[in-house]
Amino acid sequence: MSYCPVEISLKVLKNKWTIFIIRELLASEKRFNELKRNLKGVTTKVLAENLKHLENLEIINRKSNNAYPLIVIYSLTDFGHSLKGVLDKLAEWGFNNQNKLNFE
Amino acid sequence: MSYCPVEISLKVLKNKWTIFIIRELLASEKRFNELKRNLKGVTTKVLAENLKHLENLEIINRKSNNAYPLIVIYSLTDFGHSLKGVLDKLAEWGFNNQNKLNFE
Repeated sequence: MSYCPVEISLKVLKNKWTIFIIRELLASEKRFNELKRNLKGVTTKVLAENLKHLENLEIINRKSNNAYPLIVIYSLTDFGHSLKGVLDKLAEWGFNNQNKLNFE
Repeated sequence: MSYCPVEISLKVLKNKWTIFIIRELLASEKRFNELKRNLKGVTTKVLAENLKHLENLEIINRKSNNAYPLIVIYSLTDFGHSLKGVLDKLAEWGFNNQNKLNFE
């Protein structure tokens, strides 16, 4: 194993946007604009790049109706769903410790 | 709660370097240069910024001998140790799924 296992996970979860995308898709499949609306502050370009990154790694699925108007829906693959434990741990820590944190 | 709990955690673990610093300090307290050597590719400036970020949030402790030559040692606070569960989950997922990942 050339990388430490934490590094492997972080090559998938390479920034906060990948984590927020997985959080959103754990709740339900979503269209691009739904994701854009729910990920406050993300640009179209950055969202598209991170969706492509996760799609290439088969963490998410991209389904298109190939018709007009074009409808593209993103969903988690089973592989993507295996990340639920990581997201749950992040949520648990954040929930338990939010009062101890003072973000200047 | 103004943020979702995952967002709170990611305001602490704001990039891979903060996660690698915590990984290193979970093993043992470390000097700056030990951290710099173990975090392949980090610059002195980025390492110093991330150490300051974690110190401000009381995730890590900075002890200095205030003498010459100056010796500065970083260690996790008890609060910092509470992140072990998140790091373990990241390591577990990475270890279990490394063979399914093809990083172009």
